[in-house]
Amino acid sequence: MLKRKQLFLRRPKSTKALNQVPGTVTYIGRKESVETRLEVIDYNKESFERYISTNPEDAFNFEDDDKNTWININGLNNTPEIEKLGKYYDLHPLILEDIVNTNQRPKVDEFQDYIFLVVKMLYYPKDSAQKTNGTLVNEHISIAVGKDYVLTFQEADGDVFEGIRDRLANAKGRIRNHGTDYLLFSLLDAIIDQYFEVIDSIGDKIELLEDNLFQAQPSDDITFEIQELKRTILRIRRAVFPLREVLSRLEKLDNDLIDDKTGNYFRDLYDHIIQVSENIDIYREMTWGLMDMYMTTISNKMNEVMKVLTIIATIFIPLTFIAGIYGMNFENMPELEWEYGYFVLLGIMILIFIMMIYYFRRKRWI
Amino acid sequence: MLKRKQLFLRRPKSTKALNQVPGTVTYIGRKESVETRLEVIDYNKESFERYISTNPEDAFNFEDDDKNTWININGLNNTPEIEKLGKYYDLHPLILEDIVNTNQRPKVDEFQDYIFLVVKMLYYPKDSAQKTNGTLVNEHISIAVGKDYVLTFQEADGDVFEGIRDRLANAKGRIRNHGTDYLLFSLLDAIIDQYFEVIDSIGDKIELLEDNLFQAQPSDDITFEIQELKRTILRIRRAVFPLREVLSRLEKLDNDLIDDKTGNYFRDLYDHIIQVSENIDIYREMTWGLMDMYMTTISNKMNEVMKVLTIIATIFIPLTFIAGIYGMNFENMPELEWEYGYFVLLGIMILIFIMMIYYFRRKRWI
Amino acid sequence: MLKRKQLFLRRPKSTKALNQVPGTVTYIGRKESVETRLEVIDYNKESFERYISTNPEDAFNFEDDDKNTWININGLNNTPEIEKLGKYYDLHPLILEDIVNTNQRPKVDEFQDYIFLVVKMLYYPKDSAQKTNGTLVNEHISIAVGKDYVLTFQEADGDVFEGIRDRLANAKGRIRNHGTDYLLFSLLDAIIDQYFEVIDSIGDKIELLEDNLFQAQPSDDITFEIQELKRTILRIRRAVFPLREVLSRLEKLDNDLIDDKTGNYFRDLYDHIIQVSENIDIYREMTWGLMDMYMTTISNKMNEVMKVLTIIATIFIPLTFIAGIYGMNFENMPELEWEYGYFVLLGIMILIFIMMIYYFRRKRWI
Amino acid sequence: MLKRKQLFLRRPKSTKALNQVPGTVTYIGRKESVETRLEVIDYNKESFERYISTNPEDAFNFEDDDKNTWININGLNNTPEIEKLGKYYDLHPLILEDIVNTNQRPKVDEFQDYIFLVVKMLYYPKDSAQKTNGTLVNEHISIAVGKDYVLTFQEADGDVFEGIRDRLANAKGRIRNHGTDYLLFSLLDAIIDQYFEVIDSIGDKIELLEDNLFQAQPSDDITFEIQELKRTILRIRRAVFPLREVLSRLEKLDNDLIDDKTGNYFRDLYDHIIQVSENIDIYREMTWGLMDMYMTTISNKMNEVMKVLTIIATIFIPLTFIAGIYGMNFENMPELEWEYGYFVLLGIMILIFIMMIYYFRRKRWI
Amino acid sequence: MLKRKQLFLRRPKSTKALNQVPGTVTYIGRKESVETRLEVIDYNKESFERYISTNPEDAFNFEDDDKNTWININGLNNTPEIEKLGKYYDLHPLILEDIVNTNQRPKVDEFQDYIFLVVKMLYYPKDSAQKTNGTLVNEHISIAVGKDYVLTFQEADGDVFEGIRDRLANAKGRIRNHGTDYLLFSLLDAIIDQYFEVIDSIGDKIELLEDNLFQAQPSDDITFEIQELKRTILRIRRAVFPLREVLSRLEKLDNDLIDDKTGNYFRDLYDHIIQVSENIDIYREMTWGLMDMYMTTISNKMNEVMKVLTIIATIFIPLTFIAGIYGMNFENMPELEWEYGYFVLLGIMILIFIMMIYYFRRKRWI
Repeated sequence: MLKRKQLFLRRPKSTKALNQVPGTVTYIGRKESVETRLEVIDYNKESFERYISTNPEDAFNFEDDDKNTWININGLNNTPEIEKLGKYYDLHPLILEDIVNTNQRPKVDEFQDYIFLVVKMLYYPKDSAQKTNGTLVNEHISIAVGKDYVLTFQEADGDVFEGIRDRLANAKGRIRNHGTDYLLFSLLDAIIDQYFEVIDSIGDKIELLEDNLFQAQPSDDITFEIQELKRTILRIRRAVFPLREVLSRLEKLDNDLIDDKTGNYFRDLYDHIIQVSENIDIYREMTWGLMDMYMTTISNKMNEVMKVLTIIATIFIPLTFIAGIYGMNFENMPELEWEYGYFVLLGIMILIFIMMIYYFRRKRWI
Repeated sequence: MLKRKQLFLRRPKSTKALNQVPGTVTYIGRKESVETRLEVIDYNKESFERYISTNPEDAFNFEDDDKNTWININGLNNTPEIEKLGKYYDLHPLILEDIVNTNQRPKVDEFQDYIFLVVKMLYYPKDSAQKTNGTLVNEHISIAVGKDYVLTFQEADGDVFEGIRDRLANAKGRIRNHGTDYLLFSLLDAIIDQYFEVIDSIGDKIELLEDNLFQAQPSDDITFEIQELKRTILRIRRAVFPLREVLSRLEKLDNDLIDDKTGNYFRDLYDHIIQVSENIDIYREMTWGLMDMYMTTISNKMNEVMKVLTIIATIFIPLTFIAGIYGMNFENMPELEWEYGYFVLLGIMILIFIMMIYYFRRKRWI
Repeated sequence: MLKRKQLFLRRPKSTKALNQVPGTVTYIGRKESVETRLEVIDYNKESFERYISTNPEDAFNFEDDDKNTWININGLNNTPEIEKLGKYYDLHPLILEDIVNTNQRPKVDEFQDYIFLVVKMLYYPKDSAQKTNGTLVNEHISIAVGKDYVLTFQEADGDVFEGIRDRLANAKGRIRNHGTDYLLFSLLDAIIDQYFEVIDSIGDKIELLEDNLFQAQPSDDITFEIQELKRTILRIRRAVFPLREVLSRLEKLDNDLIDDKTGNYFRDLYDHIIQVSENIDIYREMTWGLMDMYMTTISNKMNEVMKVLTIIATIFIPLTFIAGIYGMNFENMPELEWEYGYFVLLGIMILIFIMMIYYFRRKRWI
Repeated sequence: MLKRKQLFLRRPKSTKALNQVPGTVTYIGRKESVETRLEVIDYNKESFERYISTNPEDAFNFEDDDKNTWININGLNNTPEIEKLGKYYDLHPLILEDIVNTNQRPKVDEFQDYIFLVVKMLYYPKDSAQKTNGTLVNEHISIAVGKDYVLTFQEADGDVFEGIRDRLANAKGRIRNHGTDYLLFSLLDAIIDQYFEVIDSIGDKIELLEDNLFQAQPSDDITFEIQELKRTILRIRRAVFPLREVLSRLEKLDNDLIDDKTGNYFRDLYDHIIQVSENIDIYREMTWGLMDMYMTTISNKMNEVMKVLTIIATIFIPLTFIAGIYGMNFENMPELEWEYGYFVLLGIMILIFIMMIYYFRRKRWI
Repeated sequence: MLKRKQLFLRRPKSTKALNQVPGTVTYIGRKESVETRLEVIDYNKESFERYISTNPEDAFNFEDDDKNTWININGLNNTPEIEKLGKYYDLHPLILEDIVNTNQRPKVDEFQDYIFLVVKMLYYPKDSAQKTNGTLVNEHISIAVGKDYVLTFQEADGDVFEGIRDRLANAKGRIRNHGTDYLLFSLLDAIIDQYFEVIDSIGDKIELLEDNLFQAQPSDDITFEIQELKRTILRIRRAVFPLREVLSRLEKLDNDLIDDKTGNYFRDLYDHIIQVSENIDIYREMTWGLMDMYMTTISNKMNEVMKVLTIIATIFIPLTFIAGIYGMNFENMPELEWEYGYFVLLGIMILIFIMMIYYFRRKRWI
């Protein structure tokens, strides 16, 4: 009956695979049939190399040189290959579980040789023509940062890192001169930049709904859309808010992998994520207020309907009664025989009509 | 009159047995007439033995070997046998009170020789065909973990540990190679896995209610179901939220009974319980929003009813008045004698009718 | 007009006696004309003595032996006798003020020789036949615990300590073997046990109101009862919540008066008070939700009324108009002269009637 | 049109004098044309002297003796005299600004030689016959306490210190035996005692509004009064809540000016202010609930109106239709010629009437 | 259709320039086409010089003397000149980014040689005749304070510092005798003074809306204005609240740049910002309450409409029915032939009319 527009996020399947041996690496996301695709970028100040493969072993060749290597893996459903890679880079089994568990909330774990992060990538795919109607993608992304490598694990093709690839290829900005910590910063910066766009689209959506409230017919669709918007904001909160702690910890991390100077950049990111959080909470309150607005709008409309009914009924019911009186068939009704009885009565009726109109005017109903 | 569907949880009897000597071991749960049933699993890397009895003394035979022993007691109403077991394993009297007090909230207590936990097991019994209509079981479970034994006390038969029994029997995964701390982890992991399923069913229920809101007739049943859902979510919160502190303390416990490596696993559980908590709070807000949605839906429906009434009354009341005029019996009413008076009047009435329809069209009521 | 049922608590007079010298001992509670009544229980492992008097000096005789003495004073309005007792036991003047100030919130003060507690005793008097209709008593109780004496000051006769008196008299449980700290624990335990009963009655009241919402006529009484229930829950919160801090401090108290072993028992009480608090907050949310439920119920009822009106009016107003047409007295109305005109018209009217009914069926109004 | 009753507090002018040199002593309160009036009370154990003047220099004479001096200044608009006094007692320029800035929130500042407090005095003037209708006074009061002097600065004549003056004059209680710290305590105690009276009047107002809700006609006045009450409670909160921190700091102050024994008294005041705060928050929730109550009351009333309309219309519209049928002028209407047709029809109409009444009875509308 | 009045703030473009190299200095504010304008004020105790230019290099001449220099830059869109200035004063690249990023929230950063602050300047432009209708300006302002210079970066011309310029020029107050720390204090004081005016205008707006609620016709405009007001308050909160932490940190800063004596002044500012925050939260609650008030107002109005309809219909529908009875054409209707039948019936009708009126009087509907 009601066709729901899934405006933003699909409800994630939160069910973990049940009754499994803990530490089992099982992908529980929406297995969009992608084959696992590897993208290796090997770079230093002087050189830049990019290589794409579907075979994880290809990645290992790039490890032994003195360049920084960024290995991006798209597609998590092919778990054996993820495990192979994990074994090569010596990742903890529970980390591997986190990589494929798309319900894992954002976090940072510090290990001897590497830092591991889980982040949520929120973005509108480029081909979605109209932002406010496009479907928001909420993609689980895991990042492992070692001395000279960065591993990124994504659910599917399509990401927000095109600008970084471009800067690496063309040696724009500082990125080729710095280590893997700066690459990590660049990745997080690109992700958080997208958050701003996402919350802007929420703001647009709220304004759109506000306009609709006053123009549209009372309709359950709007109720549903507001509820949907509430849900979306709650989900975005859940993706964004834990990142505050992640960035706060990253900034304070006393670790060889993160240069002191890069710490400043992380503090900047922390500032940005606080801004995003504050905006989310403002939009949250605005959205909650929409329901009240809608309610008063419906009540106003009903008030208007009632007024029309009351005006018409209040004017014509008494007049009809008077007409009824002189429609009676009593034999002795003197007025009926008066020569101008009919016209006098018509005059009285018109008088009553005018008085009623005047009454409603004064009551400001008309 | 109104048949309530008890969708999720029964209201627990919170009344403690009154005016009793403190430390008295009294079972206050719903005494479903189960006899206390003992299940002993004795295992190490090489061997596995399973034994079922109704006599607690049978459990003591398994204590003196060098294997790990998991003793699972189903049924808490037979308090003397609980006390016997407690005495054998040297459990504190207040601990025994906690074991049978089904109102005890989740907690962890650390003792010299053992760790004691109270947890709530939430699950849908397997035989309940339709999850969203089945009755959620909220079972009180106490766990005592010593060097080479694990005691679990359950209210009744039926639990979420089948997978663990299976892995112990068939030596799947790491479970037979590790100590009792890993068994504790496995038990908690199985319980928390079920939480995910429970909150998913809450999510399903919310979506079902949302659909019903728009399709169904306004009915007090929905109001009641929403209130029932609120109640359920509050109860689940109460069962789940204290577990966050329990797991956080377990992770940090400096105790010989817990191996350092197992600590990592507890941190993983802590992550999971945070995810469950966040989802509960999102569903909480969604449920609270349902009532507003329902309210606007009713108002919309009433608006529609009012419009129909207003349209009909506004069109026909004036027309009836006009007919009434010419139903009067005045002797001198010239129009009545005109040859085409009747047809002219019919024409005027049709004109008024069309104008009214046009007016409502423009007001978008039709 | 509206007879309010004071279901739970009377509004306490919060006004302190104004413009008085601070430290003045003035009783501000509801001076139910009780005379101050003293009850002295003198006990040790071997012996038990009970003595009732209205003369405070009688209490002093029991002080010098090596037994524990529990002196219970009922009735606070006879302030000079309270002061006499206070002087004998060397209680601070501000403490005496707290004893008679029934607005004092629960607290614990530690002194050199004694510990002083203020607690609120909530209970239903035994003679109130129906718990949910009985009036909840909120009684101010002060407890001073010294090495070998316990003083309890109550507002009036009637308390929740009958079980303790019984256990002392008959040497049930551990109570006669322990010191005054264990007696303190027993008193608090008896008070908190009653809290469970009180919140259970709140739960019953909520379920009763929920049932009434759907069955009863819309009536302002329910609105008032919900507001009354809110008020009661807020007052109970105020009596119960500060006790959490009191018990937490009692547990940690490093004082000769409290034995280390008894500390365990206080931790147990702390667990119980947390359970009570959580339940209060759940009932709080449920009660707040009742108002929304009631609102939707009223709206549903109004919707139903509107539908009946609309169906009747929509069917008969047009039909009446048609009848009105043929009631006109035009000379030239050909239909009137047709032989079967009347019957044809009746047929048309029945047709319209059936179509209307069908329309409302399809709209699911009937 | 709507005459608002300003029940409690006037909206304070929060605007600071703009664009002024910081530290400028400008009085921004409501300059009720009082001339600055000085009241000097000089006392010790043996003697008591009281002196009233309008010349601040008169105050300096009392400084050099070994008595305690309480100088109370009424009227802040004569800023040069405030500055003169400030210079004599060596008060910091920013302190002088705080004394005349009536928007300054309650606070305590500790200096070398004196302690400075800002407090809000809430009270109903004595001449206001009916407390609930009288206008609450919210007066800014600053207190400076030195070794042997206490300065109090009030906005206008009229305060809550009459009892203290009386006790000083007649040597009642401990007040003449103690130092200025005890005088400070007495002043604060007198102020906080008034808070109890104020919140009691709020409680009375809430109960009055609750009664009005059910008796009065639906009227916008009640809506306004509830909003006014909300505003008042928020303002009182703002005056009272910061005092908690002030008293907590006073209690812990390690300062020669405050005797250790007086610390106990400040702890007592802290207890009282917590009680006030808790009551404010309870009344706050009750007030917020009033709006919901009012809403359901209106809806109930509308429901009742609708029912009357529906009953009348549903009974008489069909009957009118039947009468209309037999008012038609068809030539061939056999029933009209039956001898008892009219009486049969009357009988049918009465039958329909009775059935309708029965129907509404069963629906419990009548 | 609905022309929205943008009463307070425009929605800021929160979108950061996407996919840019981090550290890039890009102005993202509303580029109101101002050219960057430099204003240099060079002063010490004896002298005062003011110079205006559009060339940033002009500012460097003033650096080498022993006077304090305040350089105010209006217009951020000309980023190369901002960078030039930044390089001269050795500002960190991320600081330069913050200067032009108008979304940066208020903060303070401490560096070796200077302190950097971001603040939001809220004010009504002077030319806006009516404050409550004027558009509030929310301007991003950055302040860098070194040993002998203060740099202020504003978005556009127009600020709240006229008073400071005047005092510097005319050596009013302490400002020429103190260092740059006192100038910083004066700037912040001027900004916070404006906050008081802004929240006062919010208070005025709330009172205006309250008045409109009762006088105006129910209209969606008010709903929108309340939502707009909510939005504004949320935005002001966002601009003001972070300043509390900024000022708290400034006060505690252990830095050569800030004199200990000036610390006192910052504590005073902190007090003021707390007052502003508290007022914002009070207005917040009042605004949220407006929606409830509006809802009850609409319901009251609808109630009144319904009553008019019900009174008219309930009186005239039964009377019309009676008239209808005697309009029937039965041949045998004895009443019709009675001589005074008509007048008796008229009498009965008048009686019914009077009884109805009495009934409604008693129900207090009239």
